[in-house]
Amino acid sequence: MSEEDQRPPERARRLPRAVRERQILDAAVQVFSRHGYHAASMDEISDVAGVSKPMIYTYLGSKEDLFGACIRREATRLLEAIQAGVQPDLPPDMQLWHGLRSFYRFVAEYRESWTVLHRQALTVGGAFAAEITDMRARAIQLVAALVVSAGTRKGVGEQAEFSGEGLAASLVGGAESLADWALDHPDISDGVLASWLMNLVWLGFNDLIEGAVWKPSE
Amino acid sequence: MSEEDQRPPERARRLPRAVRERQILDAAVQVFSRHGYHAASMDEISDVAGVSKPMIYTYLGSKEDLFGACIRREATRLLEAIQAGVQPDLPPDMQLWHGLRSFYRFVAEYRESWTVLHRQALTVGGAFAAEITDMRARAIQLVAALVVSAGTRKGVGEQAEFSGEGLAASLVGGAESLADWALDHPDISDGVLASWLMNLVWLGFNDLIEGAVWKPSE
Repeated sequence: MSEEDQRPPERARRLPRAVRERQILDAAVQVFSRHGYHAASMDEISDVAGVSKPMIYTYLGSKEDLFGACIRREATRLLEAIQAGVQPDLPPDMQLWHGLRSFYRFVAEYRESWTVLHRQALTVGGAFAAEITDMRARAIQLVAALVVSAGTRKGVGEQAEFSGEGLAASLVGGAESLADWALDHPDISDGVLASWLMNLVWLGFNDLIEGAVWKPSE
Repeated sequence: MSEEDQRPPERARRLPRAVRERQILDAAVQVFSRHGYHAASMDEISDVAGVSKPMIYTYLGSKEDLFGACIRREATRLLEAIQAGVQPDLPPDMQLWHGLRSFYRFVAEYRESWTVLHRQALTVGGAFAAEITDMRARAIQLVAALVVSAGTRKGVGEQAEFSGEGLAASLVGGAESLADWALDHPDISDGVLASWLMNLVWLGFNDLIEGAVWKPSE
């Protein structure tokens, strides 16, 4: 007889499970971000979560399953945060700005999520690397659509169709690389990071070294 | 008695070893790029190189040593190719252009080197990932110096000192991400890739959607 049996059945029992799953995932992200997948132990995850190891296995499966669940939750969170920032009725520079703002705000707020997504998932390889590649591809498509729509409005739709995905791949990679750099430079705020990248990709070095600055029109 | 003993001693024996080591490394890069570190077998490397397994172990050590030697050789090649392209007496845009040209030419020519450096080394993690991180840091420093020198010439040295390394990290990440994208788009030439990135970071989207184009001044 487990302690579960002393609680009221049905609806009342569902909440604790959801809460526990969240506790487990929060603990797992913390432990995976600290040690990496291979060195992370289920004992430490169990300690940090305050949930027994058998219960972790029952609720979320093996260490591999648990890591997969972390990747999926954090990737979904990240993409939702970025999409929530992009408002399709704004001019393209403001859409890009809000997307970048949301991205760097997420990375600053969920530093461990970003570490697991960007640094750990790739080192584990296999199916996890494939999920990350998928997530990147979705982010690139999102930015490419923005480039093509901005180009089309200005009458350079054909060039934008040709180069849009490549430019978007560069931009996404540039944004990730700066986020990665920022992990080692915690004194630089997320607003500054977003404005650096915005100035780079919107104005370009040619304007920047002439002293031009891009600022949001708010 | 091995066949080595029938050859003239000293200097004349050195060449075959250097040649064999090159053959082994070439084969190893090919096999690692195809299967990844873990799935790659020393048997296949031995077959492709046409060098016996015991000789591989004698010359270059374990599979781990061999992978490390591949990473170091390819990383050095790549950095040397980029540095050879950058000519410090040219204006900053032309320096950046030549650096990018050299980078994408390298990736097109040594596709397997790039795959091992960018995709495989990170998934192996540990010391290899640290070497890649080191190499990236050197590339970022190289670009940051270019940004700071360009900014200083134009009287915005202070801003360039503050943001130069972050901008350089973005640019390096953008260049890598586009090279990665290009692995799946072999129809796009290295010249086109370099010009996309150059237009993005030199002119920026704002000028691009107005139809501006950056072209080398040759």
